[in-house]
Amino acid sequence: MSHIDALRERLYQLSDLDHAASLASWDQQTMMPARGGAARAESLATLARIRHEMFVAGETGRLLDAAAAQLDGAGDAADPDSDDARLVWLTRRDYDKARRVPSALAAELARAASVGHEAWAAARAASDFRAFAPYLSHNLELTRRYVECHLDDPDFSCAYDVLLDDYEPRMPTAQVAALFEELRTDLVALIAAVAAAPPVSETPLHARFAIDGQRRLVAEVVGMMGFTADAWRMDDTVHPFALRIGSGDVRITNRWDEGYWPMGLYGSMHECGHGLYEAGLAPSLMRTPLGSGESLGMHESQSRLWENMVGRGRAFCTVLAPRIAALAQGELSDLDADRLFTAVNRVKPDFIRVEADEATYGLHIVLRFELEQALVDGRLAVSELPEAWNDRMRSDLGVQVTDDAHGVLQDVHWSGASFGYFPTYALGNLIAGQLWARVREDIPELEAQLADGDLAPLREWLRDRIHRHGSKFTTAELLQSATGAPIAAAPYTAYLREKLSRVYGVDLGPRRAGGNGA
Amino acid sequence: MSHIDALRERLYQLSDLDHAASLASWDQQTMMPARGGAARAESLATLARIRHEMFVAGETGRLLDAAAAQLDGAGDAADPDSDDARLVWLTRRDYDKARRVPSALAAELARAASVGHEAWAAARAASDFRAFAPYLSHNLELTRRYVECHLDDPDFSCAYDVLLDDYEPRMPTAQVAALFEELRTDLVALIAAVAAAPPVSETPLHARFAIDGQRRLVAEVVGMMGFTADAWRMDDTVHPFALRIGSGDVRITNRWDEGYWPMGLYGSMHECGHGLYEAGLAPSLMRTPLGSGESLGMHESQSRLWENMVGRGRAFCTVLAPRIAALAQGELSDLDADRLFTAVNRVKPDFIRVEADEATYGLHIVLRFELEQALVDGRLAVSELPEAWNDRMRSDLGVQVTDDAHGVLQDVHWSGASFGYFPTYALGNLIAGQLWARVREDIPELEAQLADGDLAPLREWLRDRIHRHGSKFTTAELLQSATGAPIAAAPYTAYLREKLSRVYGVDLGPRRAGGNGA
Repeated sequence: MSHIDALRERLYQLSDLDHAASLASWDQQTMMPARGGAARAESLATLARIRHEMFVAGETGRLLDAAAAQLDGAGDAADPDSDDARLVWLTRRDYDKARRVPSALAAELARAASVGHEAWAAARAASDFRAFAPYLSHNLELTRRYVECHLDDPDFSCAYDVLLDDYEPRMPTAQVAALFEELRTDLVALIAAVAAAPPVSETPLHARFAIDGQRRLVAEVVGMMGFTADAWRMDDTVHPFALRIGSGDVRITNRWDEGYWPMGLYGSMHECGHGLYEAGLAPSLMRTPLGSGESLGMHESQSRLWENMVGRGRAFCTVLAPRIAALAQGELSDLDADRLFTAVNRVKPDFIRVEADEATYGLHIVLRFELEQALVDGRLAVSELPEAWNDRMRSDLGVQVTDDAHGVLQDVHWSGASFGYFPTYALGNLIAGQLWARVREDIPELEAQLADGDLAPLREWLRDRIHRHGSKFTTAELLQSATGAPIAAAPYTAYLREKLSRVYGVDLGPRRAGGNGA
Repeated sequence: MSHIDALRERLYQLSDLDHAASLASWDQQTMMPARGGAARAESLATLARIRHEMFVAGETGRLLDAAAAQLDGAGDAADPDSDDARLVWLTRRDYDKARRVPSALAAELARAASVGHEAWAAARAASDFRAFAPYLSHNLELTRRYVECHLDDPDFSCAYDVLLDDYEPRMPTAQVAALFEELRTDLVALIAAVAAAPPVSETPLHARFAIDGQRRLVAEVVGMMGFTADAWRMDDTVHPFALRIGSGDVRITNRWDEGYWPMGLYGSMHECGHGLYEAGLAPSLMRTPLGSGESLGMHESQSRLWENMVGRGRAFCTVLAPRIAALAQGELSDLDADRLFTAVNRVKPDFIRVEADEATYGLHIVLRFELEQALVDGRLAVSELPEAWNDRMRSDLGVQVTDDAHGVLQDVHWSGASFGYFPTYALGNLIAGQLWARVREDIPELEAQLADGDLAPLREWLRDRIHRHGSKFTTAELLQSATGAPIAAAPYTAYLREKLSRVYGVDLGPRRAGGNGA
């Protein structure tokens, strides 16, 4: 067996443990009887511990060294973009990062995340930030210790770089900050312009639509997207997610509200977008670290593109409106594509991130990105967080937060010490905007295809440019090869401005050239 | 941490791996998309390998030695029946047995089982024993090598002892052979006597019963048995089974036939019986080797008792008949308890084990038990197996096997080298007969309770005598403490004779005193 094959063999086994853990997590959120939770937590903890020990063991390092030497020995024959070379590079990077964290700290972080989650859930139910504050402080303390393990790593130039890298690998904080500053300025101006336009009706969103009918609609839509019963599942859950258990086994989840049907439809398109990324991976990458979507931002770009650019686009509304009308009947029986398009794209600043529209969503993220950096750096005390949150909601979104449950306590992430995760949501929107601009150029007939319900050409374009590469290339490399440009905010805000001009029937102007001038 | 606790900690982790593997296996048979099979097989193989390596590692032996020394040091304070003492004893025994098998042979057996299963499925579909014969020969060869690893173990006095012990621990082949000889003689005589009686109608078994109605019936019945939504699941599958994933998480599975409703009802009661055993374990035994049902025979006794003694008993037919009549309507709308009782207990010799009635079932098992011993010992050549099978079916059951698919190829077990498994099915019937005789003495009002649908007293009796002990005691010890007697065939055949006398309306006589005289 070659050294590369020996390394692969070990990585296959780690992947097999991930397979089991993914399934256990999926089951916990979809199938498991309530009283099974304690034993499930123990099993998941053991799988994670065994996996971590196998990964950081010296044997992994020796296999990596031998594989790297074998590649070097191949001389000119070694393509730096080959699967083998990329596998060794990515695994080495993950290995070195994982080895820097003492097992005791990793275990403390895992325990704190679990305890913090319980405390957060109780505090949110009581809308009492002060009850959660000590847990948040503890999570920040552990997070700073985690950061310290990496500060002499030349890849990182600030504390937040270390954290962001766990979710958005190889994306510097400074780059995100610059993108977000441009995004915030553009969105604030756009939202103000929309607010000055005549309001549009969101009545269709709140019409009654029986859940059985919603399920039929969603089955049709995800079928058009590429869901097939022989390699996918769709089940109900409380907080929807998508994952691939293994090759040929992608699972998406959903939730339904009879009085708010967009949740089921757009949630399904979102999760199916994630699923298509995982389903589109090249088989040769499976069971290795290359065999999953690259950064969370790239992953989110896929879900957002399908949910928003396709699902809330005018062209596909031509497909959706008559099916909604037929399946929902009642108040929706005369729904047409224009009314659907208008309603699902209305802009409405509000408290809750996960319910935000495409324009205000980004502001929710920029706020969290800036506050969590200040928390990690110690520039903002935990006790000052609710006021800072509420101030920012007022100045950016113009909403007055009434209680912590609808404000600073609304999201789960900080309770699990997941600092650095939030930015990936907005990065996903930006990347989706760039890919969308490019695919419209590459496939001139795209709008006509979408209006016909023919989603295969778009899916195949995404598969070819993004999906099949898994984690072989960085997000920056993937974007460069797919669009010829680095990550940017302008394509997304231009897309939004064009769409909202049509929704509101007013000219919201061309993309600003940057800077703060109007 | 005490040495006992250190040992427990390691065993907990092995149990956590079993938890993950059980879930993966359940999912594979109930939920997994078809194309997920190859990756699932890899994940299961890796979990099994890691589990095996952790278990047979020298560290396990050192922890066992230290724990045993700690128990010895406790002197008189050490109760040999304590959880700790039994845990060390059982783990030591499993450890010593597992250490005797070279990893290479274990891997070869696993691979042969997998390959053999494919070959068997194809051969059965073509009803072609000769296509399967080389795989069966290879499985036998590996099985003999497995046996050789254990032949100097003083616990075993013949090759088959080694195999049987994997399924029915600490039960000697000679004891099973004596029990089965008595069982066979009794059953052959009983079946002959029944054949001479006026036939009874099985018409109700084949009446149409819509599957939705069957599901409602089964939900009511398993609810009476103890199924609760917070700790159990029931799903559809091809080959039903029951397992406990972990504490508070018991899963049973089922299949349905609109034209043969007993499959869904009695299959569910059978699997729920298995589930009650697992659900009734003492919490202190969970996540250890003591934390599962003792032998497969004891496990099968629980499923058979609920399926046959309760479900096909005259008392519970009083509950079942009106519910079947109400839910099925049509041809079953005038079903009464007597007609139900008669139909579900009719005796009908036939080819297929899994469809056999209570009286003929045992003969299917005795035949397999004797043939597989002869195969392992080399007294019977693989090429001679179909003829030996067919001869025995003719002489014992009076049926003429028409093709291998309905004969020697009907069961999956030998394709997976699971020699020694079959006897546990019939041992389960015998044990069920003994427990049933005893619980009728202990709870004089049992029949009245069953006729009222009050199944809790029976369940609690079984929990107290059997379920809560897990694997802490051997089957022989459990039977002795529950019934005051060693395992025997007579209670089961007496139960059958009494029941069938009522079904056929003739006196099938008292239990024979043993021997071959009538």
